[in-house]
Amino acid sequence: MVASDDTKPTVEGDAASSKKAAKKAAKAAEKQQKKAEHKASSVQNEVQDEKDISEGKYGIMKLIQSTGENRDRVYTDVKDLGVALEGKMVWVRVRLQTSRAKGKQCFCVLRQNCHTVQLLMSVNEERAISKNMVKFTGNITKESIIDVQAIVARTAAPIDSCSVRDVELLGVQVWVVSQARPQLPLQIEDAARPENNDPEGLKIRVNQDTRLDNRVLDLRTPANQAIFRIEAGVCRLFRDILTKKGFVEIHTPKIISAASEGGANVFTVSYFKSNAYLAQSPQLYKQMAIAADFDKVFTVGAVFRAEDSNTHRHLTEFVGLDLEMSFIHHYHEVVDTIGQTFTDMFRGLQEQYASEIATVGEQFKVEPFKFLDPPLRLEFPQAVEMLKEAGVTIGDEEDLSTPVEKLLGRLVKSQYDTDFYILDKYPLAVRPFYTMPDPNNPRYSNSYDMFMRGEEILSGAQRIHDPELLTERAKEHGIDISKIAAYIESFRLGCPPHAGGGIGLERVVMLYLGLDNIRKTSMFPRDPKRVTP
Amino acid sequence: MVASDDTKPTVEGDAASSKKAAKKAAKAAEKQQKKAEHKASSVQNEVQDEKDISEGKYGIMKLIQSTGENRDRVYTDVKDLGVALEGKMVWVRVRLQTSRAKGKQCFCVLRQNCHTVQLLMSVNEERAISKNMVKFTGNITKESIIDVQAIVARTAAPIDSCSVRDVELLGVQVWVVSQARPQLPLQIEDAARPENNDPEGLKIRVNQDTRLDNRVLDLRTPANQAIFRIEAGVCRLFRDILTKKGFVEIHTPKIISAASEGGANVFTVSYFKSNAYLAQSPQLYKQMAIAADFDKVFTVGAVFRAEDSNTHRHLTEFVGLDLEMSFIHHYHEVVDTIGQTFTDMFRGLQEQYASEIATVGEQFKVEPFKFLDPPLRLEFPQAVEMLKEAGVTIGDEEDLSTPVEKLLGRLVKSQYDTDFYILDKYPLAVRPFYTMPDPNNPRYSNSYDMFMRGEEILSGAQRIHDPELLTERAKEHGIDISKIAAYIESFRLGCPPHAGGGIGLERVVMLYLGLDNIRKTSMFPRDPKRVTP
Repeated sequence: MVASDDTKPTVEGDAASSKKAAKKAAKAAEKQQKKAEHKASSVQNEVQDEKDISEGKYGIMKLIQSTGENRDRVYTDVKDLGVALEGKMVWVRVRLQTSRAKGKQCFCVLRQNCHTVQLLMSVNEERAISKNMVKFTGNITKESIIDVQAIVARTAAPIDSCSVRDVELLGVQVWVVSQARPQLPLQIEDAARPENNDPEGLKIRVNQDTRLDNRVLDLRTPANQAIFRIEAGVCRLFRDILTKKGFVEIHTPKIISAASEGGANVFTVSYFKSNAYLAQSPQLYKQMAIAADFDKVFTVGAVFRAEDSNTHRHLTEFVGLDLEMSFIHHYHEVVDTIGQTFTDMFRGLQEQYASEIATVGEQFKVEPFKFLDPPLRLEFPQAVEMLKEAGVTIGDEEDLSTPVEKLLGRLVKSQYDTDFYILDKYPLAVRPFYTMPDPNNPRYSNSYDMFMRGEEILSGAQRIHDPELLTERAKEHGIDISKIAAYIESFRLGCPPHAGGGIGLERVVMLYLGLDNIRKTSMFPRDPKRVTP
Repeated sequence: MVASDDTKPTVEGDAASSKKAAKKAAKAAEKQQKKAEHKASSVQNEVQDEKDISEGKYGIMKLIQSTGENRDRVYTDVKDLGVALEGKMVWVRVRLQTSRAKGKQCFCVLRQNCHTVQLLMSVNEERAISKNMVKFTGNITKESIIDVQAIVARTAAPIDSCSVRDVELLGVQVWVVSQARPQLPLQIEDAARPENNDPEGLKIRVNQDTRLDNRVLDLRTPANQAIFRIEAGVCRLFRDILTKKGFVEIHTPKIISAASEGGANVFTVSYFKSNAYLAQSPQLYKQMAIAADFDKVFTVGAVFRAEDSNTHRHLTEFVGLDLEMSFIHHYHEVVDTIGQTFTDMFRGLQEQYASEIATVGEQFKVEPFKFLDPPLRLEFPQAVEMLKEAGVTIGDEEDLSTPVEKLLGRLVKSQYDTDFYILDKYPLAVRPFYTMPDPNNPRYSNSYDMFMRGEEILSGAQRIHDPELLTERAKEHGIDISKIAAYIESFRLGCPPHAGGGIGLERVVMLYLGLDNIRKTSMFPRDPKRVTP
């Protein structure tokens, strides 16, 4: 195995065949290069018999294979282009987003991540720009990566179609670094089109499956560039906030020996001559870490659910942000810690990702996320009361269905003006076996869910840390005690009272941004029907 | 499914049976509490007919179920105990590590994470400490969690056996919060014993399997408490350093549709009515993220290898620290970035984890880790030369075996005084199909490994970003092109030149600390013979 990256080639034969392979590779690389050079020169010679004044200033660049060529050439980032650079000659490496040839001119939009700038390539003897060169530029396939040398020029009027508005680039050299194929399975322009500004619905949309099938292209839209930067931000904030509070990051195994939480919805793995399972949560392991004196722990990692749910909010594999914490007197010490973590995270996103949030808002119209500090905490019976008042028929100890949760979210929003709240004291009967019963009313429990825009994003509880009570509760839930022996054993070795919770990363990002589908916040989503790309 | 934590109970029946379950749970909790009270009172009444002056000041505490009792009681951390608190009354929540009753006195060692302090409980009328109470304290099972109220007292001579040396605690109240069972499968004292100070080997050692079978106990040793805090530090430093350099964190799927890297060593998963596989690396996905304009990405997550290797350095599941980065001219831009990330990480560990490193050193004798800044970079032919000079018979394009790598590590250390170095320009034939050939010598490649104490911890390369060359190389490696169609397709959509690498987290921690087995740096290790706990 070795480190996680380059598996040693498993199809490699003996030394002799290896050498043969190397020779072949060398040949292939050479062929590749020749082909590129040929292409470039054939473009240059398109207009025959006429000396091309731009020769050597455009074409297909040969494969960048790290020869060290042009190593002193400095590149400018598109986001840094502005009037301060007026008149300067710069190099940029960008994607050609669109081009429009018009007689002796070609206008292009160049893109780098979320940033765009206009390139003007026009026939110009002084700058040695030939008709051929302009034509070549106009023929570069969209989404190709190109190197452009250009003069930064102030524009007469702001360019509304680009993020860089006050300057454009006057092209001097254009080289194709990596060519995109002519027929793209989707157009970035279509994929990036705002959702709500086309009342007649005449403009082309790209459906979810086409996007996901061609995720590499789809991810290039400004909204997607922003969404996954925000997702990275959620993870970073979650970890930084908890680390500051003294939490230790741990890593828990994904391959486990038994389906620990009831047996349903678990994926089976062939494990050498036997079977194993994919963990549905790090639950048992983070609790063992607490029993092992780590006091406060968190873990970020893949979580698997073999649930045949094809909804807007279910994935078969998602990223869990899990935490667990020992407490002294009352599990509300933990609830307060988690609540504060969320408000700190929301504030961090507001402050550090304002521009990314705005970028997402340009495609998807969404209300800003509202929250209170400290967060609102309601008790389950209060919620039932609110729902009954709103005309919902619901039993006192009945779990909340998804539509009822959403309604409750709206009621809470209108009454308290918050998109985030904590619902405490769930009925014992609707929670997992390891949930601590409420000491004052055994029909309820020391457990809680947390909601964003009316959808659950965290589920947690005080756990039973007494082995006898835990065993009894597991039996009542019909769980095979022999399969969780190691788990129960942890509590026979002395374990402090503790509580925690598990958060679904993709849900947090989806609901923070008010998006309508969890596949929008998973880079390569997995559901019952999708395991590619 | 919902968030990653509390799966809804899957064995729950209808509402009626739920209520029954709740009632049962309530009963169980009540019983539990009564039992605890009974135990406490029976202890108190052990010496009959005599009024116990300590009554109500010791015993078994009832299950902490978050009633809010004693909520105003403030606890002191063991690490904060010192002469500044002399004469003060404090509460601590600790483990009873050891106790030794001696007539009217009982000496205990109390532990909190890595920190220990002495508790003296002695019969004392003034403080109302009875013989019964001293006896009770002496009978508390080791590793139980207890609440102790005590007076902080300066010691006559420093207590060498504890980390808090200049004060001890004079007990006033003792309550058992969570009882450990009397017979522990291993003694913390044995598990924590220094490796090298017992030349006769007479003292008890705990073997690896016993440790891992009882990992919750084993993890409580000071060295283990330190090791996993250092591991958390490696992750944090890796992410923080790269985030500062503009990298974006991504999450890649673990469930994949095809064994992408040759087909061997891959675990199969039952995926609804079909099969899927567990990813052997995030390789293809981080490259797709580069093709999708994320420019510089990293990911931290589980990596799976179905390799039947039972060695000191192989796991079937480990944590991969992976990164990938587009570059402008030369893959050395990436090599330099990775090298700098390592030196920054090593420096961060030295500065921020000095005390944890020292704690590990108390059990495992290890030379401090040496590194150069900037790091040493050798080329493969140089290494072959060094090895030949040292008498090793090795072909110019032969891969290095593990023993040869170790020897090379020693040669490099003696010549350059560094435990970390980069070996660049591996023979093309020994690298994966997606490795870019060296432009100057097609028998070599733009690929590199990085080593710590002579063992490989990173493998990486410039990747082929041209779809034609990539297809050719894959075919030469015997890879079924249809299975990596989506991967190759990414490069038909325009992709910048890029390089990266994958790091095994557990190996980095093992080798940084100079430990001898990777199971020491995986909290719950997985190997061909172990999937529990």
